[in-house]
Amino acid sequence: MAFEEKTLKRTEIFDGHIFKVVVDDVELPNGLGQAKRELILHRGAVAVLAVTDENKIILVKQYRKSIEKISYEIPAGKLEIGENGSEQDAAARELEEETGYSGDLKQIHEFYTAIGFCNEKIKLYQATHLQKVPNPRPQDDDEVLEILELTYQECMDLVKSGAIEDAKTIIALQYYALHFGG
Amino acid sequence: MAFEEKTLKRTEIFDGHIFKVVVDDVELPNGLGQAKRELILHRGAVAVLAVTDENKIILVKQYRKSIEKISYEIPAGKLEIGENGSEQDAAARELEEETGYSGDLKQIHEFYTAIGFCNEKIKLYQATHLQKVPNPRPQDDDEVLEILELTYQECMDLVKSGAIEDAKTIIALQYYALHFGG
Repeated sequence: MAFEEKTLKRTEIFDGHIFKVVVDDVELPNGLGQAKRELILHRGAVAVLAVTDENKIILVKQYRKSIEKISYEIPAGKLEIGENGSEQDAAARELEEETGYSGDLKQIHEFYTAIGFCNEKIKLYQATHLQKVPNPRPQDDDEVLEILELTYQECMDLVKSGAIEDAKTIIALQYYALHFGG
Repeated sequence: MAFEEKTLKRTEIFDGHIFKVVVDDVELPNGLGQAKRELILHRGAVAVLAVTDENKIILVKQYRKSIEKISYEIPAGKLEIGENGSEQDAAARELEEETGYSGDLKQIHEFYTAIGFCNEKIKLYQATHLQKVPNPRPQDDDEVLEILELTYQECMDLVKSGAIEDAKTIIALQYYALHFGG
């Protein structure tokens, strides 16, 4: 049984700041004919499970236009152009910009967020031995963020209440429970 | 501190079969001015952590055009139009179509997959007490799938090798480790 879909034609629909949209005409394997694939192309992102010396997890409270609601998430950000070679630097930058902390970073997972139609890949790091940066890099000027330091149990209360509904944050919290002993 | 971003104008860019693309002009809170938000609108999806009586996890091997690679994932599928009221029925349908099994379903998580720019929400179910359906509904005719039943350890080997890089599948495997005792 063959699996691969051969691209016959790619039509670009939109070239934005955050993602590109293309539609591919593909040749299906096994003589199944042709199909169209609507795709979102994204540069990728990093996210950080930051755990303080008091065993608190750092969350960012922010408004998400995609769902028109407030959301609580671990610190995260898109890769900048040309940054693909050093995701760990990007993770350190996002941690500092969003929380004012630096720390010891270690990659713990990487995953495609919406693999059915989008190639966004997130590299997830843990950050421990956190230290306040004296003059941290400022936040992006179109972001309004509030930083919280919560126990694992407080985070799970936010999951239960529906305030945490973000896949990367759920992966980070389950990782915490499995490896830091929630 | 205010968080909400008010929509001033929505421009529709693309209206596809899988998602819509819009760009919103928004008024930022706290007098920060205006910004643009590129957004993907999606109907939502369901996914199933299906565990056999022998404690094996059912995975689907398939080609993903988004990443141009083979991917191993838990069974999943988009909600059809008008199906929003009965995600559990959708999960049962996907389980049957992709694996030929029916089972006892229970919702275990729900999450936005790519909350920074997309409103796709996945409801994740566990399915236990699986039974082979005598004449299962057929697979979609543009999908080529292979079904595997693997131990948790075999799944973790696929995570380690990079064959599993899918967020919903990683959430399901972590859930298995936390609640079924991986």
